[in-house]
Amino acid sequence: MDLSEYFPIFDKLTADEQDQLRRLSMRRTVPSGTLLHNGDKDCMGLLLLRSGQLRAYLTSDEGREVTLYRLFERDICLFSASCIMNSIQFDITITAEKETEFWIIPPDVFKKLMETSAPMANYVSQIMGTRFTDVMWLIEQIMWKSFDKRLAGFLLEESAIEGTKVLKITHDIIAGHMGTAREVVTRMLRYFQAEGMVKLSRGVVEIMDEEMLEELSGK
Amino acid sequence: MDLSEYFPIFDKLTADEQDQLRRLSMRRTVPSGTLLHNGDKDCMGLLLLRSGQLRAYLTSDEGREVTLYRLFERDICLFSASCIMNSIQFDITITAEKETEFWIIPPDVFKKLMETSAPMANYVSQIMGTRFTDVMWLIEQIMWKSFDKRLAGFLLEESAIEGTKVLKITHDIIAGHMGTAREVVTRMLRYFQAEGMVKLSRGVVEIMDEEMLEELSGK
Repeated sequence: MDLSEYFPIFDKLTADEQDQLRRLSMRRTVPSGTLLHNGDKDCMGLLLLRSGQLRAYLTSDEGREVTLYRLFERDICLFSASCIMNSIQFDITITAEKETEFWIIPPDVFKKLMETSAPMANYVSQIMGTRFTDVMWLIEQIMWKSFDKRLAGFLLEESAIEGTKVLKITHDIIAGHMGTAREVVTRMLRYFQAEGMVKLSRGVVEIMDEEMLEELSGK
Repeated sequence: MDLSEYFPIFDKLTADEQDQLRRLSMRRTVPSGTLLHNGDKDCMGLLLLRSGQLRAYLTSDEGREVTLYRLFERDICLFSASCIMNSIQFDITITAEKETEFWIIPPDVFKKLMETSAPMANYVSQIMGTRFTDVMWLIEQIMWKSFDKRLAGFLLEESAIEGTKVLKITHDIIAGHMGTAREVVTRMLRYFQAEGMVKLSRGVVEIMDEEMLEELSGK
């Protein structure tokens, strides 16, 4: 499969621009757990996902975390190129949650393309709008939703992503996704278990009553 | 003063585009309290502020509010034109907090300009990046900062915006900015008063010890 089939606006670029993208993009595969972007310390460029899964998250000075969004096949990782966008003044971290294969469009190639091509510049706005929407959803969740609803929604989402009801995930990792402490997660999961919604065992949360979780999450 | 002096990338547009913007933009003045944008029900277009102050905020189904950011002279209000950006899938509300004077660039004019002009499309990305940064700052505040620190920061910001230490603001309005309940604000303000940081009277919060508030806010 060629980059052209993964890059949504490839057809709208000039022949020269297409040629540049093909010549200067690099293919790379990283194992699960790889740190791809760490605030303003990195500037890999635009990443175009061929397969795998990335997680974008925020970290506090004290080491707490909260997941902002996930990226999957055919998604574009924009903030790994935030160094060339002056108005982006925040630091996020991006890691691979699974083995991930992607094309890298280097920062200087991306910058030149964006400056000269209106379709490319509009595409960047579009990606930014999508991520903005993810983050606004998160604010609404944090501001107005109680933790039990958020946790129910998180378990259902994980189950959908992994395609299984048996989630291999620790309470610590769940806490890192949701921006809270492990104890808070453990307490709520025990309540879910008492209500028959999940079954807990070492490093595993098994979903027992999807319907009840869905009702609770308020979707 | 002409629109060209307020529109940062005016010089980068073609003569035709400049002419279009001049001919099709409208000048308008609205009184304090005017609702300018209410989720997906409105689509005024791009607003370019000549003077005044706008507030962009999120509302919950239950009527709670949280302020996302403020816009001032020379700022551009992008989300009042969100109808023409498909990737923006969230609803915010925008109201004038003071008498506000602005140019309106109608949605169709803005759309055409963005599609054909790379400088314009990049400028849109840039504005979106700035708003994104505001919103990420808010997430960090909500996630990692305790309410006393946030409230101290809010009072100092209001004082800077209004240019006075005597803030004419009710506890209810502060709660609406911060996404919390009035009682929580009242309790914390009384604690601030007991510590000598503020003095409370009907509809007024007077800052008595700016230094102490600054220290508390952790700026």
